[in-house]
Amino acid sequence: MAGPLILALPLKDLPAMKHLIVNAFYNGSPSQSWAGLWTHPDSTADSYNTLDYWLDLARTCEAGFLDGIFLADTLAISDVYEGKPDGAIRSGHFVPNLDPMLVIPSMAAVTKNLCFGITGNTTYEAPYLLARRLSTLDHLTSGRIAWNVVTGLFESAARAMGLKTHAEHAQRYEAADEYTRLMYRFWEESWEDDAAIRDKPNKVFSDPSKVHRINHEGKFLSLNAIHLSEPSPQRTPLIFAAGSSGTGLQFAATHAECAFIAYGRRDHVRKQVQQIKDMAVAAGRHADDVRTIVPATIIVEETDALAEERYQDYLRYVDGTGNLVARAALLGIDFSKYSPDDPVPSLTTNASRGAGVALTTGAEKVMTIRDLMSYGPGRDLFLVGSPTTVAEKLVEWCEDTGIDGINLGRNVEPYGLKRFCELVVPELQARGAFKREYVEGSMRAKLFPGSSGRLTDRHPARKTAAA
Amino acid sequence: MAGPLILALPLKDLPAMKHLIVNAFYNGSPSQSWAGLWTHPDSTADSYNTLDYWLDLARTCEAGFLDGIFLADTLAISDVYEGKPDGAIRSGHFVPNLDPMLVIPSMAAVTKNLCFGITGNTTYEAPYLLARRLSTLDHLTSGRIAWNVVTGLFESAARAMGLKTHAEHAQRYEAADEYTRLMYRFWEESWEDDAAIRDKPNKVFSDPSKVHRINHEGKFLSLNAIHLSEPSPQRTPLIFAAGSSGTGLQFAATHAECAFIAYGRRDHVRKQVQQIKDMAVAAGRHADDVRTIVPATIIVEETDALAEERYQDYLRYVDGTGNLVARAALLGIDFSKYSPDDPVPSLTTNASRGAGVALTTGAEKVMTIRDLMSYGPGRDLFLVGSPTTVAEKLVEWCEDTGIDGINLGRNVEPYGLKRFCELVVPELQARGAFKREYVEGSMRAKLFPGSSGRLTDRHPARKTAAA
Repeated sequence: MAGPLILALPLKDLPAMKHLIVNAFYNGSPSQSWAGLWTHPDSTADSYNTLDYWLDLARTCEAGFLDGIFLADTLAISDVYEGKPDGAIRSGHFVPNLDPMLVIPSMAAVTKNLCFGITGNTTYEAPYLLARRLSTLDHLTSGRIAWNVVTGLFESAARAMGLKTHAEHAQRYEAADEYTRLMYRFWEESWEDDAAIRDKPNKVFSDPSKVHRINHEGKFLSLNAIHLSEPSPQRTPLIFAAGSSGTGLQFAATHAECAFIAYGRRDHVRKQVQQIKDMAVAAGRHADDVRTIVPATIIVEETDALAEERYQDYLRYVDGTGNLVARAALLGIDFSKYSPDDPVPSLTTNASRGAGVALTTGAEKVMTIRDLMSYGPGRDLFLVGSPTTVAEKLVEWCEDTGIDGINLGRNVEPYGLKRFCELVVPELQARGAFKREYVEGSMRAKLFPGSSGRLTDRHPARKTAAA
Repeated sequence: MAGPLILALPLKDLPAMKHLIVNAFYNGSPSQSWAGLWTHPDSTADSYNTLDYWLDLARTCEAGFLDGIFLADTLAISDVYEGKPDGAIRSGHFVPNLDPMLVIPSMAAVTKNLCFGITGNTTYEAPYLLARRLSTLDHLTSGRIAWNVVTGLFESAARAMGLKTHAEHAQRYEAADEYTRLMYRFWEESWEDDAAIRDKPNKVFSDPSKVHRINHEGKFLSLNAIHLSEPSPQRTPLIFAAGSSGTGLQFAATHAECAFIAYGRRDHVRKQVQQIKDMAVAAGRHADDVRTIVPATIIVEETDALAEERYQDYLRYVDGTGNLVARAALLGIDFSKYSPDDPVPSLTTNASRGAGVALTTGAEKVMTIRDLMSYGPGRDLFLVGSPTTVAEKLVEWCEDTGIDGINLGRNVEPYGLKRFCELVVPELQARGAFKREYVEGSMRAKLFPGSSGRLTDRHPARKTAAA
């Protein structure tokens, strides 16, 4: 297949379609999802702890008109695999792990439109402090911030925070709901729009009559404080959340402006997209108030054959045990207890409830432990091919499932990301499936063009504020 | 007085002396110490919430060879003055207040040698999370980070964190000592130097046998975790602490590599410098292991007359009540209950124990509330004059007291800082009292030239690790 020839076809005649959301999916450590690829000669992952690494990432993403960088995070080190942290430490899976929040301001300094999704944990971060951190980021980035609300995966995080056990899944989500609504009150209620008036003649920076104390007495949290930040461009940062289980799905449908659907095949994703939108409508929101994204892994070269060759090269660097460690961490299942030929067990655990079930649903064949070790199989949006092959499959898959976009998983980086920007982005643009320039304004304004950049009154943040 | 003529004198004949430490003293809000100056037409303080403001600050400081930017912080809003937050809100004193930790990575991206002191609160931040944040900053800045250990000033912070009251002063310091030693264990013990081995052929990022769990069961804290960061350039960031009271002074003498002596006149400072060094020696350290700095306010123009004119201009913008609010916040004394002619009461409170006493010690006349309102009086290092006047007084004062340097307080900024760099720095350089280029390496290597950049075995961080 000759990419350049295809590019010459009159693709402009294709019907206009919505632009896909494309984020780079990153974290603060050398390895994230696909274990072992940090050892590839083209990978710079082992310099994850330098500023240049992050500045280069940000510039690469903005040059390719990507929407943002979605920064995952975990606290502590998973010890699910073999009941100890050794596998994670060896493979570099989320360890060592920088605080990803801190890399954002430097990346904001070298970009203008690129947005940043940052994970913040409702189980272990103090809401008063996290609210200020996110407002600070929203100020410094001129409104290019999303908060990815998580409740935490690892039992080991509880012990790192001085607690005996990680709270039970349903309780974590109930607490997260209260926590998130409290955050909304800091962001939406504490400061009126014209509170920080900067009245120089009268030497009044802010008008105390327009700054309000938040007094919260809840089931999980009680506090009394004035938010430390004046209203940031978005006030409440854009809300990201992942939904896979019943509780998580309900949380995402209620709060998320962009819901992350982890795992799952075509049918499962199509169903989850519809389910989230139905639940959002039931909660008084519009179906379009929630964008949806899935993870995707893409290996692209000029031709299908070259891409396949590249993929085969990557396989030499894969760390099979590391992939099992990563899956064990996410699903809370100790895969060291199984043989490579065993089918993947469909268990419900206290980690990512429902994700394990989703992983094994709708597979063409029974998924085995060996499949998990090689990472690719079982992933629908695992695309290897020429620019046209990748773009066609991606667009078709997204249209068919109703999904709005993807989080591009790391493979050999920044090579993979640069190739995506060079080769796939123009193909998507030619199909009318990707922007040719950024929308002006905040992250919310970019994701919901035509909006004010502030939340609609249908969102619980505004309802909470109005109550 | 003609500055340029003075510059032509053969100052190189003066005896060589130690280089003064000069930091810019900043915080994440429009007003810090000298209330009202944010309203001056030359001040950009009201854009404190933009990235450009911080990038400009960092570039200015590095162009002038300043050592660093010392970032103060407070949690919540002081409600000491009139028993309510209105005064602080009106004057902009630490409110609105960005999280200053987040501005550092962007400033690091545009500088190479400038260092950053960041305040971190031992009463309200979770040690596991703060340890990772500081390690992350030390990585991203290539070792240009100091941690300013504070226990917090405001009762309102306790309520913002869901507690009933702010812990009592002595107990806060006892807890801070345990907390700081726990931080050392994360930084010095959890990862051996060759743990993060990056062994590509064997696909081993880190060697689990060289990564250690910290199991801490203390009076105030109990936790069990592996630090999430591999060793950063300094491992333990340079330790800053302020000492004014007995407890605070003991803490600084034990832990600080740079002690901040707030307030006080010449005799008081000379005494405190000696006291800290004596206490450090008693704790098994060397007198030179602790550098000492004081706040200074400097207004400099080409001539004494022009500087005085500039000072008189500033006085038109001063917010007298705002200055009382700031002093009330720091000292825990409600100055609204006094008349302008009343002497400043010498009280001990739960805020900054001893600072109130220091403020009123050794004054040539009785300090009144009115003096506090005008900010300048009562400050020994409040220098207004030509470059030679300022440089001479500064050098003489520092030599006489034995202090190692200054935190340059904000007046009208960035104008004041730029003038300092343009006019005073060359004068200090000509006297051999200021560096002409940066020392290579980490913050510790810069502050203690010839050191390895890691802590000496005399420091409690190393003793804790060795135990």
